Amino acid sequence: METNESDMGFSKDNLKGFILALLSSGFIGASFIIKKKGLRRAAAASGLRAGYGGYAYLLEPLWWLGLITMIVGEIANFTAYAFAPAVLVTPLGALSIIVSAVLAHFILKERLHNLGVLGCVMCIAGSIIIVIHAPQEHPIISVMEVWIMATQPAFLLYVGSVIVLVFILVFHFAPRCGHSNVLVFTGICSLMGSLSVMSVKALGTALKLTFEGKNQLIYPETWFFMLVVASCVIIQMNYLNKALDTFNTAVVSPIYYVMFTTLTILASVIMFKDWDGQSGGSIISEICGFIVVLSGSILLHTTREFERSSSFRGSLLPVSPSLSTQLCSGNGELSKHDEENVAPSEEFCLRRQELY
Amino acid sequence: METNESDMGFSKDNLKGFILALLSSGFIGASFIIKKKGLRRAAAASGLRAGYGGYAYLLEPLWWLGLITMIVGEIANFTAYAFAPAVLVTPLGALSIIVSAVLAHFILKERLHNLGVLGCVMCIAGSIIIVIHAPQEHPIISVMEVWIMATQPAFLLYVGSVIVLVFILVFHFAPRCGHSNVLVFTGICSLMGSLSVMSVKALGTALKLTFEGKNQLIYPETWFFMLVVASCVIIQMNYLNKALDTFNTAVVSPIYYVMFTTLTILASVIMFKDWDGQSGGSIISEICGFIVVLSGSILLHTTREFERSSSFRGSLLPVSPSLSTQLCSGNGELSKHDEENVAPSEEFCLRRQELY
Repeated sequence: METNESDMGFSKDNLKGFILALLSSGFIGASFIIKKKGLRRAAAASGLRAGYGGYAYLLEPLWWLGLITMIVGEIANFTAYAFAPAVLVTPLGALSIIVSAVLAHFILKERLHNLGVLGCVMCIAGSIIIVIHAPQEHPIISVMEVWIMATQPAFLLYVGSVIVLVFILVFHFAPRCGHSNVLVFTGICSLMGSLSVMSVKALGTALKLTFEGKNQLIYPETWFFMLVVASCVIIQMNYLNKALDTFNTAVVSPIYYVMFTTLTILASVIMFKDWDGQSGGSIISEICGFIVVLSGSILLHTTREFERSSSFRGSLLPVSPSLSTQLCSGNGELSKHDEENVAPSEEFCLRRQELY
Repeated sequence: METNESDMGFSKDNLKGFILALLSSGFIGASFIIKKKGLRRAAAASGLRAGYGGYAYLLEPLWWLGLITMIVGEIANFTAYAFAPAVLVTPLGALSIIVSAVLAHFILKERLHNLGVLGCVMCIAGSIIIVIHAPQEHPIISVMEVWIMATQPAFLLYVGSVIVLVFILVFHFAPRCGHSNVLVFTGICSLMGSLSVMSVKALGTALKLTFEGKNQLIYPETWFFMLVVASCVIIQMNYLNKALDTFNTAVVSPIYYVMFTTLTILASVIMFKDWDGQSGGSIISEICGFIVVLSGSILLHTTREFERSSSFRGSLLPVSPSLSTQLCSGNGELSKHDEENVAPSEEFCLRRQELY
């Protein structure tokens, strides 16, 4: 089969970013399974589950292996953003759901629903379409270049709108309906998430250039981006935990994935002008591919909910939040849902879910 | 949004074929709803359902309107093949499922499952991808040209394999496991279906040229293609009815759609060399788009089965079979499943389905 390089949109950097994104999805997807296996072993050994205050899992090497796998995955993801456009890297995050679902099927013997298999097929088909039509980035030679992109009027308008919306959500809607409407907390996370990814990309590019010998740490802009990464990620984490504490993971995850990915792509298209110079056909194909991946992951989530197992929590958080969520809220959620017998807390969860 | 014509694959003929295929899906999708509404009215008026031998529907104008709508849809579909490649026209047949599902939701008040909506979205996204990457056909100036394509060694090999496979299925497998394995009858239909479409395309092209003033009826090849259309469609119809008589529509339809569409695309790629001169990226995109449409229609079918309504019978038969099925087996199947109260025959159907 003849392949045309420009048609495939595969510069050397895109290829690196693509491979890193795949590795990241593999590691993040696998980490959930390893950690879950560790938790089960620890529970079997100590007789006390993490959800009930047991800390036996801290003595379980498998749990630590899972944590390390996840950190490696997050680093790979972070690095992927330094090489390839967010329009390519972000949607590929959905592949971690597939890795997790497939490994759960074979290792944890959680039966994968037939429609779940269909969801996997769709995620893969959609990802291929996105990869084929991914735009090529102009090579960036200095962090100043990123700074100029970040301070162009269009992107400043986007950042301004995001900040205003977040303020309205935090101060007006969160106190009134944050605990009854799932869109409030998830909306805050997603809006901040799009800024996180943009700043992660800026910082990643700066670090990449520094490693290549062009020291970018001398520019205050690099440190400013670092500050932005830290604050965005903290706000995002905080509200993600609120969302997960208030609502069922199976409700939060797909909504969050859709909003987060859409906003990130929007931000990237505005800031990095990813779509300039692309043909209409390529742009439409990318959007369709993105819709297909979204549909596939919603399908996979919905059918996994049929099977009453939800180990998917963080696989939907392509930047650091997936790590932080695990660190912050410990393993309560994981163990709350995972056992075969329905514990009281799970019954409560299911009942609570029916309200929405 | 800038669009590059060559990139969009839209010659004037492709556009005509595309619009005809859309119209065809619209008419075929709507015809099911109109006929069903007619059947309900007739049943309400006479108190006797078609499944129990009532013929009141023949006096119901709505039923006839439905039949005419379907005939118009089939003619549009036939004509579409004369203008655009089968790789473009065949997968778009899935859109009739969407039209039917959406109209059923609004007119017949059959609730569309949330996952069904997702299936619709996927069918549309997949169709857009296929349309964007559809190959352009070289304009054909005489039926002799089609004849040369049909007699090239590669295509003769395909036809030979199909005939051998059909013989094996009909004489070896059909008597042994035709009534226990759904793949036997459906396989025969699909294999013959791919030849039907190719001959329909040849005949359609000949008629199109004739209408344009270049009389093709003087060539014996035109009459030969007509003979092939007739025999293929009769065999296809015959085994489709056997499949539908033996197995539940919801089991037959998705399998038939997948096999029929795949084989038709394969035949078209071999005979018309649709993929020559297309880039690797375009071909992969088309295949992915096709997989997405398939997944979407499987999802839509599965979830409609959740709702226990199956008015989809013929919408999966892009050539004349959808018409013929309706004519041949009357309306027994339609009325068997459609009523809200579970009739004995439907209970039997459901029980029978559990066997597979």
